[in-house]
Amino acid sequence: MEQPQQSAEQERAAEAAPRAGRPPLRVGMVGYAFMGAAHSQGWRTAGRVFDLPRQPVLAVICGRDATAVQAAADRHGWAAVETDWRALIARDDVDLVDICTPGDSHAEIAVAALAAGKHVLCEKPLANSVQEAEAMTAAAEEAYRRGRLLAMTGFNYRRLPATALARRMIADGRLGTLRHVRATYLQDWLVDPKAPQTWRLRKESAGSGALGDLGAHIVDLAQYLAGEKLTGVSALTETFVRERPLAHGHAAGLSAGPAAGTGAVTVDDAALFTGRFASGALASFEATRYATGHKNALRIEFNGDRGSLAFDLERLNELWFHDAGQPGAEAGFRRILVTEPDHPYLDAWWPPGHGLGYEHSFVHQARDLVHAIAEDRRPEPSFADGLQVQRVLAAVEESAEKNSVYTPIAHPGL
Amino acid sequence: MEQPQQSAEQERAAEAAPRAGRPPLRVGMVGYAFMGAAHSQGWRTAGRVFDLPRQPVLAVICGRDATAVQAAADRHGWAAVETDWRALIARDDVDLVDICTPGDSHAEIAVAALAAGKHVLCEKPLANSVQEAEAMTAAAEEAYRRGRLLAMTGFNYRRLPATALARRMIADGRLGTLRHVRATYLQDWLVDPKAPQTWRLRKESAGSGALGDLGAHIVDLAQYLAGEKLTGVSALTETFVRERPLAHGHAAGLSAGPAAGTGAVTVDDAALFTGRFASGALASFEATRYATGHKNALRIEFNGDRGSLAFDLERLNELWFHDAGQPGAEAGFRRILVTEPDHPYLDAWWPPGHGLGYEHSFVHQARDLVHAIAEDRRPEPSFADGLQVQRVLAAVEESAEKNSVYTPIAHPGL
Amino acid sequence: MEQPQQSAEQERAAEAAPRAGRPPLRVGMVGYAFMGAAHSQGWRTAGRVFDLPRQPVLAVICGRDATAVQAAADRHGWAAVETDWRALIARDDVDLVDICTPGDSHAEIAVAALAAGKHVLCEKPLANSVQEAEAMTAAAEEAYRRGRLLAMTGFNYRRLPATALARRMIADGRLGTLRHVRATYLQDWLVDPKAPQTWRLRKESAGSGALGDLGAHIVDLAQYLAGEKLTGVSALTETFVRERPLAHGHAAGLSAGPAAGTGAVTVDDAALFTGRFASGALASFEATRYATGHKNALRIEFNGDRGSLAFDLERLNELWFHDAGQPGAEAGFRRILVTEPDHPYLDAWWPPGHGLGYEHSFVHQARDLVHAIAEDRRPEPSFADGLQVQRVLAAVEESAEKNSVYTPIAHPGL
Amino acid sequence: MEQPQQSAEQERAAEAAPRAGRPPLRVGMVGYAFMGAAHSQGWRTAGRVFDLPRQPVLAVICGRDATAVQAAADRHGWAAVETDWRALIARDDVDLVDICTPGDSHAEIAVAALAAGKHVLCEKPLANSVQEAEAMTAAAEEAYRRGRLLAMTGFNYRRLPATALARRMIADGRLGTLRHVRATYLQDWLVDPKAPQTWRLRKESAGSGALGDLGAHIVDLAQYLAGEKLTGVSALTETFVRERPLAHGHAAGLSAGPAAGTGAVTVDDAALFTGRFASGALASFEATRYATGHKNALRIEFNGDRGSLAFDLERLNELWFHDAGQPGAEAGFRRILVTEPDHPYLDAWWPPGHGLGYEHSFVHQARDLVHAIAEDRRPEPSFADGLQVQRVLAAVEESAEKNSVYTPIAHPGL
Repeated sequence: MEQPQQSAEQERAAEAAPRAGRPPLRVGMVGYAFMGAAHSQGWRTAGRVFDLPRQPVLAVICGRDATAVQAAADRHGWAAVETDWRALIARDDVDLVDICTPGDSHAEIAVAALAAGKHVLCEKPLANSVQEAEAMTAAAEEAYRRGRLLAMTGFNYRRLPATALARRMIADGRLGTLRHVRATYLQDWLVDPKAPQTWRLRKESAGSGALGDLGAHIVDLAQYLAGEKLTGVSALTETFVRERPLAHGHAAGLSAGPAAGTGAVTVDDAALFTGRFASGALASFEATRYATGHKNALRIEFNGDRGSLAFDLERLNELWFHDAGQPGAEAGFRRILVTEPDHPYLDAWWPPGHGLGYEHSFVHQARDLVHAIAEDRRPEPSFADGLQVQRVLAAVEESAEKNSVYTPIAHPGL
Repeated sequence: MEQPQQSAEQERAAEAAPRAGRPPLRVGMVGYAFMGAAHSQGWRTAGRVFDLPRQPVLAVICGRDATAVQAAADRHGWAAVETDWRALIARDDVDLVDICTPGDSHAEIAVAALAAGKHVLCEKPLANSVQEAEAMTAAAEEAYRRGRLLAMTGFNYRRLPATALARRMIADGRLGTLRHVRATYLQDWLVDPKAPQTWRLRKESAGSGALGDLGAHIVDLAQYLAGEKLTGVSALTETFVRERPLAHGHAAGLSAGPAAGTGAVTVDDAALFTGRFASGALASFEATRYATGHKNALRIEFNGDRGSLAFDLERLNELWFHDAGQPGAEAGFRRILVTEPDHPYLDAWWPPGHGLGYEHSFVHQARDLVHAIAEDRRPEPSFADGLQVQRVLAAVEESAEKNSVYTPIAHPGL
Repeated sequence: MEQPQQSAEQERAAEAAPRAGRPPLRVGMVGYAFMGAAHSQGWRTAGRVFDLPRQPVLAVICGRDATAVQAAADRHGWAAVETDWRALIARDDVDLVDICTPGDSHAEIAVAALAAGKHVLCEKPLANSVQEAEAMTAAAEEAYRRGRLLAMTGFNYRRLPATALARRMIADGRLGTLRHVRATYLQDWLVDPKAPQTWRLRKESAGSGALGDLGAHIVDLAQYLAGEKLTGVSALTETFVRERPLAHGHAAGLSAGPAAGTGAVTVDDAALFTGRFASGALASFEATRYATGHKNALRIEFNGDRGSLAFDLERLNELWFHDAGQPGAEAGFRRILVTEPDHPYLDAWWPPGHGLGYEHSFVHQARDLVHAIAEDRRPEPSFADGLQVQRVLAAVEESAEKNSVYTPIAHPGL
Repeated sequence: MEQPQQSAEQERAAEAAPRAGRPPLRVGMVGYAFMGAAHSQGWRTAGRVFDLPRQPVLAVICGRDATAVQAAADRHGWAAVETDWRALIARDDVDLVDICTPGDSHAEIAVAALAAGKHVLCEKPLANSVQEAEAMTAAAEEAYRRGRLLAMTGFNYRRLPATALARRMIADGRLGTLRHVRATYLQDWLVDPKAPQTWRLRKESAGSGALGDLGAHIVDLAQYLAGEKLTGVSALTETFVRERPLAHGHAAGLSAGPAAGTGAVTVDDAALFTGRFASGALASFEATRYATGHKNALRIEFNGDRGSLAFDLERLNELWFHDAGQPGAEAGFRRILVTEPDHPYLDAWWPPGHGLGYEHSFVHQARDLVHAIAEDRRPEPSFADGLQVQRVLAAVEESAEKNSVYTPIAHPGL
């Protein structure tokens, strides 16, 4: 019993039989670190929980280190490996390229993948500069016109049940006229000055620091949930620790790390900014890696004249809602446990009251993108949405450099 | 692009390549409703996140309705189907039988599967009666002696990071001498008297009501975390609504539902009981399906003379700890976000601060059982553990029938 | 400037000028420890915040130790002192006797005060035995018939804005048919086995332990808020530490403490009980002084078929409400901040959002009693209410002695 | 019994006997609206709970409307009334003038009171302009030099047990190097555009809107708790509703309200600003009256490299503390219930676990000011502290007018 003699083929069939009548969607993923693992879990699970028009297949994974990428393929269940992303996008058996690398390589890979006739999912932030993001957006427009190819930016936090419910409620007018948005994304992994320098702390690889890594998430989420865009910002940024010890060995992902000694931190440790929405609502944002005790505290609140909503990623199955129409003596913020069948995404999951986790945002992202591809609908957030966030981040950096002066956000073509 | 021409074999290989050098563990699952879906997700994921000594394979799924079980196989990715559990346990290509049916069939399937040389994972409660659980436990003992076959009871809530951390802290003596345990498991799906009668509300299929469904979980969790057993209980039970409309069509799982009209509710709607632990600590338990507004509120707290711990399934990534050794002016319950690499199970998941969900308890259950099988260690909770919980439930029922009189819990052979 | 030369008379006038046109209500208080301080604050404040028909006057304070009682009078602002409660009740310038002593003296003082023509407010528990409480209730009935004298039991937790709002909502039918009540009152001041023995740990002075001190509060609150009575209970009690060091010097209040060595603890440390309400709702109660980390955690929750309510004394300005009539996707427990003008008692206090504290329950108790006296309405909770709670406590003790057997609660004359 | 015949003198003596051997401190208060009521409660209670070196006496209350001020005196227990503040400060029987009027009259009254030889307590914000605050500070300096007269600004939120504990912990170095401060003060009473215009919405009476009313509190609290000052700010302000209906009748306090029609709102509805502390820490502030569902949500958090602290006025008996020195697997924000005898102010109040309310900040303010006067120590916050806050507010307004440009805060003489 303990050493069964079935064939390898049988074993493979056991787990991965594609669902009857559903054509596969063959994914090629570039990068295999944190985001690579999360996306793998998303692609693996989406077609097993949701009834998808096409079944995702973990076809090819790509990374520069042959040994490491083979180990990742083995762990996560990818069928083939490549060590050059150009080889990956040249393959016929890949329908979609999923870019999970640091931001400095997004533009080149995405533009080439679209040119090669692949759909593209690109991790956020879309790029390390507005210029790159513009080129990617132009390429996406062209690819859609030419070949109905779709391009999506990976702002996964839009796709938690609680945030999706918030979007639905705001779109339904439950908050009325928006007055305030306040968002923070607090982490603390840089509090210790001995924490090592990595690719995330170098401008050339990461583009920016907390701003692009964390700030991009809350800018996108704030604008998406509000259903409107920021028109200008005023910003303060800071790098508290400007020199850090270099990490040993290879850095994660595509960028190799340096050898020893210390390295300069050339990105922001923290970014604070205020702004105005198109409707006149005021907004405040804070992204930092120095908020001791907070590991991943993405918090966002909306106040409108008909109600308020609040979300905290540390308790991601909850949405807090204040309905200003309640009788005064019974009014209060109510804690909606977003775990019920009539909440977004949840009819496919568990019975009432059984909470999901962080990774499910990637399952839902995969689900929504598969639907978009099968139904030939352009997905949200598009590359244009990613570009617009990039423009907000650029305005933040410009304001911070110019003594916090209020800086309008460019909206060419909008 | 949109209609790729790869072979089906290639597609299958894409997702399910077994991990190099790891022999498969071929699972045959009986039942495909809620628990079937949760276990499928557990088996599918465990070997992709953890480095397991054997790779789980979703080999065969079994249910009585051929069409429904085929749909479940297709959805969840099982390689083969059977419509008779006897056929399933007769297959050579199944190493482990996972029993996800209602309680009335547990004993027969489990005993037969062990006799057929399969490892067994059986959902809780282990059985609908002490007698059945005793037979199952005897069969498990015999199968282990005879063939090193392992048998595990599916008390999955032991395997959340927060509960596993609680167990570790209590075992490390962080609470000192235990004084109090209080546990509730609150749901509300029967509040509406028009909610239909189902197999869960009939004694012959479910054994008991809230007591076996919810009470079994909190009894097991309380005893496991405390590291000691209950010695007696005093109980009150109640059935608030004694007649309910019959559900239309087939009931979920193996038990077919009746046709129309109303049916008697022959199990408890709610069960309250107090008790004593072997150490003298006092305990209280409440299991109910009438706690309006609570969908799945499993809450448990421990007070010892050195500290206290509290857990709430609605916020399953948190554990609250009061350390009585803190200086008084700074003392307080601290909210441990159990999302860090040095917390149980979490080194294999995401970076700090990224929470898991309900289903991960099944991933961890699969992980732990695979390790136990590969390392020839008897798993916890064993069938004997499941039997002991059954004895507690029986004492609760006996006390409730005897005017709440304090009723010792039988511990033959312990 | 620093040493003004005004007369003592002027100084007194400055603070205590009775309000124009409102006759005084002259209070004589027996006892000056914790409850004495709290009641002093209540009497001092009630007439300054609320428009009362009579203005409370802190007339006479009584305690056996002449020096200590004079210091208490000086601190709390009582105009006169007595060292014998018999002298206090004999005074013509006292309208109401407020009994803040340990339970063993309640009956004698209360009966005598009523006989002497005084209104009486008596701290809870009403007495140390059902027999004493019956005598007090009979005396109160007689005094009301004879002289319209009022007698009130000091269950102050009825008079927080949040609990008063809960009562109003339940009385308005917001919960529908009641199914569950669960109440705990958790403290931890006995966790340390070296904490001294005091009058509260001796049966002859305190009557019982956690049961009478804490359990009495939650039994009264549960019944008052539910609007119905318990009909029977099943109980477990325990004394974890049976011998404790004696406190040095005098014990607080009227009972002198012993000298040195250790003394037996002759009351319960913890009491757990379940029960049924007249409507069939199930209830659970836990009162303990061994819940490490909990200083004063009185928590109570009600589940009905139309909604649920929850209260926690540690956050006493909040009431949590689940309205089962909410649309499902927006349903949740809502946190009502009970700080608004249309909440009970709050039109006389601060603008919206400014929370009250523990002591305000005594201000409101004083307010309500003054109104009852001025308007010749019998106050709630009456002595009969206090007696009924005493009967519940007696049934708890009886059940605990009789192997937890379910014990009906006597309701003679109800 | 019901109509006692004691003399009025006896009644007065009953409540207000000054404490033996403690000279009185005779207070004259100007204003009798919200702050007047809160200060009355503070003065009345402080000497009854704390052992003060001088006993506060509610000597004279002053307001322009003779009938209304007499009613206030009667309600709150002030011995005498004046209708002209100049008459009040001319009285020999007043030691301290307590200014509870709108900000436009603070400077004139405070300067005159100091000149007349009175100690002064002045509500916040200290004045409606930096110029006024400078004059007041100069007068305070002169009065101290000349006559040891003390002047205090009424930032009462420094004097809650939780905030005082936070100050103590930060001063003890528990947070290490400060990195972040974030503070919000959220109210919602202007959400309804039909809410009336009052003196608080006119620049000439209130100076500013949410900025001076709410922002002043969080600026003071942030700086006080941090133990350092802001050096510059960047700000956005907004007035969402610029015309409101006029309130009927007289406005509260000294400023009479207009008759009918609508009036312009000439102050900010909301103010957002970021800034830097002297140490380099980043700070963000938000003050608004449009945060639907928030009645009085003053929230402040500090992150340092050794720990973090968080406070929320809606749960004012709690302080949240993260100690970065905890072992990682047990780390978390801990909820300190600030209700214990070794917490600030609490040894004089109740046993463990009995929470205080909003008004106790005024009791503690009175307590601390009486000690300062008796011990000839200059109190904090001084007028100079109030002036410095005024300079921060002025920099906020300047930045908001200058396109949010970062604006240094003037520190002449610091």
